[in-house]
Amino acid sequence: MPSFFPDGADRRVEIIEVGTRDGLQIEHHIVPAVDKIALINRMIDAGIRHIEVTSFVSPKAVPQLADAEEVLAGIRKRPDTNLMALVPNVRAAERALKTPVDGGVLLCSASDTHNRKNLNRSIAASLEGMRDVADLLQGGGKEVHGAIATAFGCPFEGEVTADNVLRIAEAYMTLGAQHLTLGDTTGMATPRNIRDTVALLRREFPGVDLCLHLHNTRGVGLANVLAGLEMGVRRFDASVGGLGGCPFAAGATGNICTEDLVYLLDECGWESGVSLEGAMEVAHQMEALLGKPLPGQVMRAGRRLRLHAADDVVTASG
Amino acid sequence: MPSFFPDGADRRVEIIEVGTRDGLQIEHHIVPAVDKIALINRMIDAGIRHIEVTSFVSPKAVPQLADAEEVLAGIRKRPDTNLMALVPNVRAAERALKTPVDGGVLLCSASDTHNRKNLNRSIAASLEGMRDVADLLQGGGKEVHGAIATAFGCPFEGEVTADNVLRIAEAYMTLGAQHLTLGDTTGMATPRNIRDTVALLRREFPGVDLCLHLHNTRGVGLANVLAGLEMGVRRFDASVGGLGGCPFAAGATGNICTEDLVYLLDECGWESGVSLEGAMEVAHQMEALLGKPLPGQVMRAGRRLRLHAADDVVTASG
Repeated sequence: MPSFFPDGADRRVEIIEVGTRDGLQIEHHIVPAVDKIALINRMIDAGIRHIEVTSFVSPKAVPQLADAEEVLAGIRKRPDTNLMALVPNVRAAERALKTPVDGGVLLCSASDTHNRKNLNRSIAASLEGMRDVADLLQGGGKEVHGAIATAFGCPFEGEVTADNVLRIAEAYMTLGAQHLTLGDTTGMATPRNIRDTVALLRREFPGVDLCLHLHNTRGVGLANVLAGLEMGVRRFDASVGGLGGCPFAAGATGNICTEDLVYLLDECGWESGVSLEGAMEVAHQMEALLGKPLPGQVMRAGRRLRLHAADDVVTASG
Repeated sequence: MPSFFPDGADRRVEIIEVGTRDGLQIEHHIVPAVDKIALINRMIDAGIRHIEVTSFVSPKAVPQLADAEEVLAGIRKRPDTNLMALVPNVRAAERALKTPVDGGVLLCSASDTHNRKNLNRSIAASLEGMRDVADLLQGGGKEVHGAIATAFGCPFEGEVTADNVLRIAEAYMTLGAQHLTLGDTTGMATPRNIRDTVALLRREFPGVDLCLHLHNTRGVGLANVLAGLEMGVRRFDASVGGLGGCPFAAGATGNICTEDLVYLLDECGWESGVSLEGAMEVAHQMEALLGKPLPGQVMRAGRRLRLHAADDVVTASG
């Protein structure tokens, strides 16, 4: 019987930390490479194995990530560390090959309007250009991961079509992508469309290794994680402190929060290998770097069984 | 097969709005009665049927709720409106009888330390005093609801015992309580202890009508709602805008947010009868009254299919 609780020995869930890529790319404050490296090294110390470090985009387009090579070169990898980066084109793949990155993430939106806005080309043009990118990466011994942005809805077009999702997924499968990430780019995923989209992909591509990239824009990010777990998904993107945001809504939260996700997984009996205490420390470090509070909740309230003295209470409540 | 999606005709979920009680009681700003009345009338217009309006506590102890009688008298009830208030003692019950409140909520913590801190007496003393309170309420034609605070953990004692939960539940059943509310007073509930506690109560008291009072202190409030739905729970407390807080953690969020809950229920196929648009308006009104942003997310991001023009984007992201 499917459940969001683990069943027997199937307890492992992989967390992919994307804060330094999906989070920092929209921050006004540019974090120096040395601070990013220190932060990522602490993530690794906290047990985070998969990190989407950066994006090989044009430094002019995204100055926040202009230090991609420097950051990747500075990270103290462990044998099981898996570093990833977005690789949007051939130029990016050429840059990736000269770094210790383990895998490149290809990206295409399920919405043509969003893809044009984000990558300045149609879905068809994106898919066409991917063969060369994948060949370069694979030729250089790098893994290829495929990500479908706006997989659960587009802020311009509304619902996306199953046809577009399947078409992009098929392109990734043909390229030999290791994982397929369904991106909830602007927080339009719900338990129901996660169930439906995951079921669709499993039907068309049995055995596909799915990852969910969820945002908490509408408050249901961790509820969506339970929906994903129930559908057998065992990989989730997240960002420390819930860093990130929504380009359309000031004050809306961004990616689901890594340490809140660790807390939820721990409490449900899943094993992510990530230390809650360690992830909270990284989140506090990120807050200090950016000089502002982040939306993560557990780092404020503390572990579940963090006890208080009876005279510690501000106001008791029912 | 249990699921957090509705199965056939079983689609109804009741939302109990507790913002003006659990939320306002810890705000420094005292909201005038006339504003509370306007807010509650708009909640009713938005389709909210159950409202825990206030608490008949001592005006000296909680000046924020000193206007209980005035507020209850001013509400424009509909035939299906169900107004509730906390009734902690005989004096409170006497006050309640002179108002149009429909039901009184009795409260006792599953943790003796928390009960002493909150109500200044032991669990045993609380249970002993309830008979008179319930008799008064029922004699005056009011319903009696039983609430167990710290049902999923106590910030002073840690885990609470099943014995304490069952002992208080039994006392409420004996008094003829209509509903039994499990209160996650400081946000220590998790999907697993919700499953276990609900299962325990159903085993001991088959047919008990359970309500979950969840806080989002550690970010998993709506994930916990899915866990409750899967266990057959169909009543949830919530507060507009996520008003409220945690007495131990500055910046931590409070009760789960009414409009975010409505959004989740709508998107999963449940029917609460509450208008998402209307609930968001009430949340914005609450923000205006308190002069500060509240943690609700949907009211910032907007409905799921709220579309944007392609030049409306601040920063595109993957």
